[in-house]
Amino acid sequence: MAVYTEVPDEELEEFLATYEIGELLSYKGIAEGVENSNFLLHTSQGTFILTLYEKRTAAHDLPFFLGLMNHLAAKGLACPTPLRNKPGEMLGRLAGRPAAIVSFLDGIWVRRPQPKHCAELGTALANLHMAGQDFALKRANGLGVADWRGLFESSCARADEVARGLADEIQAELVHFEKNWPRDLPHGVIHADLFPDNVFFIGDRLSGLIDFYFACNDAFAYDIAICLNAWCFEADGAFNITKARAMLQAYTARRPLDRQEMTALPLLARGAAMRFLLTRLYDWLNRPEGALVQPKNPLEYLKRLRFHRDVAGPQAYGLDP
Amino acid sequence: MAVYTEVPDEELEEFLATYEIGELLSYKGIAEGVENSNFLLHTSQGTFILTLYEKRTAAHDLPFFLGLMNHLAAKGLACPTPLRNKPGEMLGRLAGRPAAIVSFLDGIWVRRPQPKHCAELGTALANLHMAGQDFALKRANGLGVADWRGLFESSCARADEVARGLADEIQAELVHFEKNWPRDLPHGVIHADLFPDNVFFIGDRLSGLIDFYFACNDAFAYDIAICLNAWCFEADGAFNITKARAMLQAYTARRPLDRQEMTALPLLARGAAMRFLLTRLYDWLNRPEGALVQPKNPLEYLKRLRFHRDVAGPQAYGLDP
Repeated sequence: MAVYTEVPDEELEEFLATYEIGELLSYKGIAEGVENSNFLLHTSQGTFILTLYEKRTAAHDLPFFLGLMNHLAAKGLACPTPLRNKPGEMLGRLAGRPAAIVSFLDGIWVRRPQPKHCAELGTALANLHMAGQDFALKRANGLGVADWRGLFESSCARADEVARGLADEIQAELVHFEKNWPRDLPHGVIHADLFPDNVFFIGDRLSGLIDFYFACNDAFAYDIAICLNAWCFEADGAFNITKARAMLQAYTARRPLDRQEMTALPLLARGAAMRFLLTRLYDWLNRPEGALVQPKNPLEYLKRLRFHRDVAGPQAYGLDP
Repeated sequence: MAVYTEVPDEELEEFLATYEIGELLSYKGIAEGVENSNFLLHTSQGTFILTLYEKRTAAHDLPFFLGLMNHLAAKGLACPTPLRNKPGEMLGRLAGRPAAIVSFLDGIWVRRPQPKHCAELGTALANLHMAGQDFALKRANGLGVADWRGLFESSCARADEVARGLADEIQAELVHFEKNWPRDLPHGVIHADLFPDNVFFIGDRLSGLIDFYFACNDAFAYDIAICLNAWCFEADGAFNITKARAMLQAYTARRPLDRQEMTALPLLARGAAMRFLLTRLYDWLNRPEGALVQPKNPLEYLKRLRFHRDVAGPQAYGLDP
């Protein structure tokens, strides 16, 4: 559930007066996104999202995120488009925080994705990768392979509270990743957090991608690997090759994978599982007493990691190598 | 912040299929209302609010609440109108809970009401009281004078943790109320919770009243007394007679108060302060460890209660007796 900053009337009025978006008719805090405060605005000109960036989103990254959305929208990708205020800026300040207004996207995220949704996702992901190729700004992945050891050290001492032997297993995996992580794959702007709640559908048609606040420069195939983890496992933890095949066929129809990317896919998927295992482990061990939000179980991602460790090759994902 | 029930896709689809409201384009949980889960729906036909009633709203009261909104809207009062589903019902079930869809009202609640807002409120309150007079269903006030002693007993032992002497002071007040509470004032349907967050404005014009889930049959002047407490005190606890006069003049221009109502007003306002003191005291003493929602300070209402106890008569509120 969203952090919820209360915005004083006068400050909101002043802030909105710096935009040309008509008369404010309603604004409501929405219970989505865990990083920032989001408000749905109705004005005489339409519907918009107002976001107040809370401290977990680094202020110096905002020009990258907003610039990227602006760039992608201009290329025809369905994603929120930041509005410019009268001085021409996409970023302002409200209630002591950086703040932006973006266009509202219709659509609903799918709680239980089917293969048809995975195919739509594959197409959109390839489009995103191609549309981002001439975006000028850069941002390193702050949760990439080089960051995992530091992240693990903050949870290491208590990891075995979650599962016996977990610390040793993660330790061995990190050594493997540090030694074998592929360095020269085709790369560019990736979304890096394209879970089902960030992908909107109207009926069976994908209507937009949201939440670009983990976007960064990294290997395209790593973004695919994140999606394999996020979209292609069932609630009981079983891998669904039909969903993976649907996603990969749609992706490669738009942007073919080269030999290196195909070969690397099991290791990238195993690494993507590690990245979410580590952040979930941290959140699990550091959840506030009595918090309303139940942290997600890190062990789901340990199970995925082991699956990818054991696959024979990219054909396990429905690819024809 | 709202309770937030996650609704499975298929269940939502099935539920919406029982209504004629077009294609679903988006739904978002909104961070308003502490009693129920609220979702903003966009469909091809417009914007609506979907409410899932959580356990604090008694299911057997829902026909009263929904019937009342339907009745008031038909009389021209700006309030949410429950939609009827294809079988003609205003109430259904979703995610194991009673659920209803109501029309969406534009408008913004005013964080710092001014006298002009209080005047608009007075007119709307009188209109509400008159429009409810021929509503057929009845509901007793579950938080009326007869209920205060029981409510106090659940907090009594720990009341002095909040302020020394609080238990004794409440005890003495309850004796006074039980002996002197007026029984024969003009009565009908009252809102009973018309705080600023339940009153929407567009610019300076009142655009609607919401949240009828405390509505009941009680003295009209008691509803006025609740509003005096909720709208006419400053953040520092000082009473603002200009706001009270604006509200009462506007109210009485639509529905004059009789002699008994005027005379009773200080006692009713003192009682209304007790009602919110008691519920806030309970919430304060029973707040969950680490909860995100900070309960409201009960002592604000002790201060209001003392103010009303000390006034000389209804002229203290700007009324000419």
